[in-house]
Amino acid sequence: MAGFKHLVIVKFKEDVVVEDILKGMQKLVSEIDAVKSFEWGQDIEGEEMLRHEFTHAFLMTFEDKQGYTAFVGHPCHVEFSATFSTAIDKIVLLDFASVVVKAAT
Amino acid sequence: MAGFKHLVIVKFKEDVVVEDILKGMQKLVSEIDAVKSFEWGQDIEGEEMLRHEFTHAFLMTFEDKQGYTAFVGHPCHVEFSATFSTAIDKIVLLDFASVVVKAAT
Repeated sequence: MAGFKHLVIVKFKEDVVVEDILKGMQKLVSEIDAVKSFEWGQDIEGEEMLRHEFTHAFLMTFEDKQGYTAFVGHPCHVEFSATFSTAIDKIVLLDFASVVVKAAT
Repeated sequence: MAGFKHLVIVKFKEDVVVEDILKGMQKLVSEIDAVKSFEWGQDIEGEEMLRHEFTHAFLMTFEDKQGYTAFVGHPCHVEFSATFSTAIDKIVLLDFASVVVKAAT
């Protein structure tokens, strides 16, 4: 779907239990209605050279920028962010209105 | 949709006409059936510090890993990649099977 996207790519610290982080994220997106969809993946197959050590991608979709702003300010997100930020070694965030060129049928 | 994802985040070189690159991508995804969906966006609002100079995200979805492999080996992709690689300053690629936690309704 189109909408406003919040894309996060990370490299977790070595001692992090990624399953625990994922559980927290699942709880987070179930608690916040503004999150319309959420998917993630772990790259275990890409070209290492072009991956630049990043391992996980997280993609959330909101109806619009306002939905994203509501998410960012939500107490559950503020709390989760504090935990999340201690778990990451490297991160890139991109927030953007999505342009759909070819839509899934 | 779930499926296999090909995520590309880039910072283009300064003299690049991004519209030309986008036209090339639109042509590419229209020519290759294996690409089930394609969307992209330009971050003009995120936190600069966490964006790490990356500006654009491109996300393609394939039915499965085989679809992605077919795309990578397709002559049109091979040709486009040569052009694309001369336009980028920084790039991260992640390829992963998508786990859908919350689906768009």
